[in-house]
Amino acid sequence: MVHSETYEIEPIAHIRTPFPEKFGIPRQSGLVAEAKGTIVFEPKYRDPDALRCIETFSHLWLIWGFSEVEQDEFSPLVRPPRLGGNEKCGVFATRSPFRPNELGLSVVKLDGVEKTKGKGTVLEVSGVDLLDKTPIYDIKPYIPYADAHPDARGGFASDPDEGVLTVDCDDALRERLGDDATAVLAALARDPRPAYHDNPERVYEMRYGARTVRFSVDDGVLTVRSAE
Amino acid sequence: MVHSETYEIEPIAHIRTPFPEKFGIPRQSGLVAEAKGTIVFEPKYRDPDALRCIETFSHLWLIWGFSEVEQDEFSPLVRPPRLGGNEKCGVFATRSPFRPNELGLSVVKLDGVEKTKGKGTVLEVSGVDLLDKTPIYDIKPYIPYADAHPDARGGFASDPDEGVLTVDCDDALRERLGDDATAVLAALARDPRPAYHDNPERVYEMRYGARTVRFSVDDGVLTVRSAE
Repeated sequence: MVHSETYEIEPIAHIRTPFPEKFGIPRQSGLVAEAKGTIVFEPKYRDPDALRCIETFSHLWLIWGFSEVEQDEFSPLVRPPRLGGNEKCGVFATRSPFRPNELGLSVVKLDGVEKTKGKGTVLEVSGVDLLDKTPIYDIKPYIPYADAHPDARGGFASDPDEGVLTVDCDDALRERLGDDATAVLAALARDPRPAYHDNPERVYEMRYGARTVRFSVDDGVLTVRSAE
Repeated sequence: MVHSETYEIEPIAHIRTPFPEKFGIPRQSGLVAEAKGTIVFEPKYRDPDALRCIETFSHLWLIWGFSEVEQDEFSPLVRPPRLGGNEKCGVFATRSPFRPNELGLSVVKLDGVEKTKGKGTVLEVSGVDLLDKTPIYDIKPYIPYADAHPDARGGFASDPDEGVLTVDCDDALRERLGDDATAVLAALARDPRPAYHDNPERVYEMRYGARTVRFSVDDGVLTVRSAE
């Protein structure tokens, strides 16, 4: 159906993140503060002037695209993982990727504005919850007086620490994870398993940058089995 | 230029607000808490199921379109009104409407979910900073643990009360404004004048719903001259 008010948007940038696959991506931004990303602008928008004053803000909004989602028909109901995957909510009451316009919204911390040789001026950010190479459609400063509502009622997403797992990782494996250990273990604690997976025998695999971690979960305790 | 990653979005809804013109729209959401809006869904998305559980959240994000902005070429620099209009910032360090993808972002309070006869289920919201009939591309719940960063550094937009005017409105005029008096006077206090207008002789006109208010500003005091 052609709609008179359809609007065409194009990426201004892409973000590089340590998440090459959907499995293991934190379910909201900021949950894994250590997860770092680099925003690389498209040549057309690679003008350092477009970033002037940006370092006076500590946080940025990213409006981005759920590039890996394919949805043919509008479905008004989704099953949020936070509700165990068997309860349905309206799509506009969730941040599910399956939505009419596949737009995502994340707030990230701005760690630095860096000039590079091949990619122009890039933004170093952290607390990302985006797949590697996600297209970014807009970047806006976080304005605390307008955006921060710490007393807002958060519905089913009220407690970020509900369902957090205890992570068991022996020293040798932790050492193999090197600099990424803190971020990887924080991401694992957030329980990357799909809702209602609860088979202690099953070994899951999560990728983080070039690393691959295997783990299992039994009774709220996640045990790292291998790290490469 | 055809870009392989352009993405077509379409309005899921339009918002009705008391702001028929750009002049007088609060410069961020929440600044005029009394400014109410009604989100009316497009027939295609007018399914009450899509809103199931939404009332468990107190605030919502709206991703919307700067429908009245026409920009032909990318301009990396803009002049934020908060900086008096003569200082330039990078577009991604501002929420200026003149941006590559003309997407706006606002958080509004959810006041109610109402079934109507002709327009399906609508959302009553407040604290709006949107032009009447603005297209809405997405609605997402506000998740306080991820979205609220009261200690974020807000750059040039740190103090919402900087530049707030004293409003002088006599009782007869206030009475003429009826139920809208609080909202109109709050919007006026935020100084709707373009940056660097400072002519005490000039009479400005602001519309709010069906009302028209005329005022002048002298030395930080706004005086309401007429109200219809």
